[in-house]
Amino acid sequence: MIVSKSNKQLKDIKKLMDSSKARKEQKLFVVEGLRMTREVPEHLLEKIYYSESFFASSLSVATCEKKGEEGKDYEIVSDEIFKGLSDTVTPQGILGIVKQPEYQLKDAFGGKILILDDIQDPGNLGTMIRTSEAVGVTGVIMSTGCAVIFNPKVIRSTMESIFRVPFLKADLRKAIDALQKEGYTVYGAALDGAVFYNEITYGEKNAVVIGNEGNGISEKVLDAVDYKIKIPMAGKVESLNAAISAAVILYQL
Amino acid sequence: MIVSKSNKQLKDIKKLMDSSKARKEQKLFVVEGLRMTREVPEHLLEKIYYSESFFASSLSVATCEKKGEEGKDYEIVSDEIFKGLSDTVTPQGILGIVKQPEYQLKDAFGGKILILDDIQDPGNLGTMIRTSEAVGVTGVIMSTGCAVIFNPKVIRSTMESIFRVPFLKADLRKAIDALQKEGYTVYGAALDGAVFYNEITYGEKNAVVIGNEGNGISEKVLDAVDYKIKIPMAGKVESLNAAISAAVILYQL
Repeated sequence: MIVSKSNKQLKDIKKLMDSSKARKEQKLFVVEGLRMTREVPEHLLEKIYYSESFFASSLSVATCEKKGEEGKDYEIVSDEIFKGLSDTVTPQGILGIVKQPEYQLKDAFGGKILILDDIQDPGNLGTMIRTSEAVGVTGVIMSTGCAVIFNPKVIRSTMESIFRVPFLKADLRKAIDALQKEGYTVYGAALDGAVFYNEITYGEKNAVVIGNEGNGISEKVLDAVDYKIKIPMAGKVESLNAAISAAVILYQL
Repeated sequence: MIVSKSNKQLKDIKKLMDSSKARKEQKLFVVEGLRMTREVPEHLLEKIYYSESFFASSLSVATCEKKGEEGKDYEIVSDEIFKGLSDTVTPQGILGIVKQPEYQLKDAFGGKILILDDIQDPGNLGTMIRTSEAVGVTGVIMSTGCAVIFNPKVIRSTMESIFRVPFLKADLRKAIDALQKEGYTVYGAALDGAVFYNEITYGEKNAVVIGNEGNGISEKVLDAVDYKIKIPMAGKVESLNAAISAAVILYQL
């Protein structure tokens, strides 16, 4: 059992949680809680860390068995040390070290694609991935300027959907070109869109671009979309939250 | 010009920003930034605080003139002190002390009402008020267990809609009773809802209840609604983010 704060493994976990650079270099990230850890696909799960009391509880049985069967590595940490390790106020006592999944553009193919241009807020990004699964999005393509997806706040707000929706970062111009060649119609949500999102007869293969929270879709990307669409807004509201816009359009679609 | 951190007015502002108790006692709250301060209705604006450099800039002219006309009180604060005062990383240099608006249930009447049962996340609450204005909601009724609406994070995420949508806290059972007597149909968004939200022919007077992020609508409130409705979800998703659910239903409505 790990009882010392200065243990090297613990320092490495902290680094993975706090540093986007460390995550990038090691191609790993951290998930917390039983639900999330259970949802990690076997081939991505590197190691599980339990708090002492969580390991002793019956709740841990499911994950322990899984670990035993698959020969996954695990480690027990004293409750006090675990608390300091966790990113949450009342940690459950379980976290997993996970390999970053790597998807290709074709993994996103399938009828309904969400494209995100420089989404900055981690909560928005996570919520959009959660909504994407609910609405049957087949893949999420993010610009390189989007928030870092393996950040603990993003992971948490995806509510496990992170493991069930293919996602990748890409040059959006190139990705849109490739999608259009595959027969996709690409819609960009813009305040000055030419048509309302709910007055369109959508085809079989659709991709929707949602832009940055403050500035919307960048000009370069907007030039490439097939149609600019807009959501009607009453009052003096100038725009909707980006995750809200995405959900309203995707549910219509 | 205020140049000392220990100035009593500054301490009072800090208290209003940080303490829900202070806001409740004084029936005041704080808004930040030029856009937000400009949107404060005249009868609610108590006082404006400018940073020295913002006051000197042409951007401040509009608010200063307004202040002059109406005889509103203002104060100038040194840039350094203002920075410490602000809740944001790069403050614009203007904040307003604002009287809390007080609405009655009848102020919410008008065809489309949003009812929130114990929404906990300040960002969700603010986003729902912003969405409410966009979709023409005539009033937002919150349970007493909802997050505090005058918290700076909620105020910021409403994007000024806080001044344009009537809202109040109330006992939800009593409010729903009153609405039903007024001819409203009350819909509750529930995972085990009997009908899909997009398969309903809505009438003229509707109210939608959205429940707590973790537990949904409380039993007591759910018992009072006319219909339980649900949003279709694909994959293994168990629920949507509360603000997303609200937006998807309200836009359908």
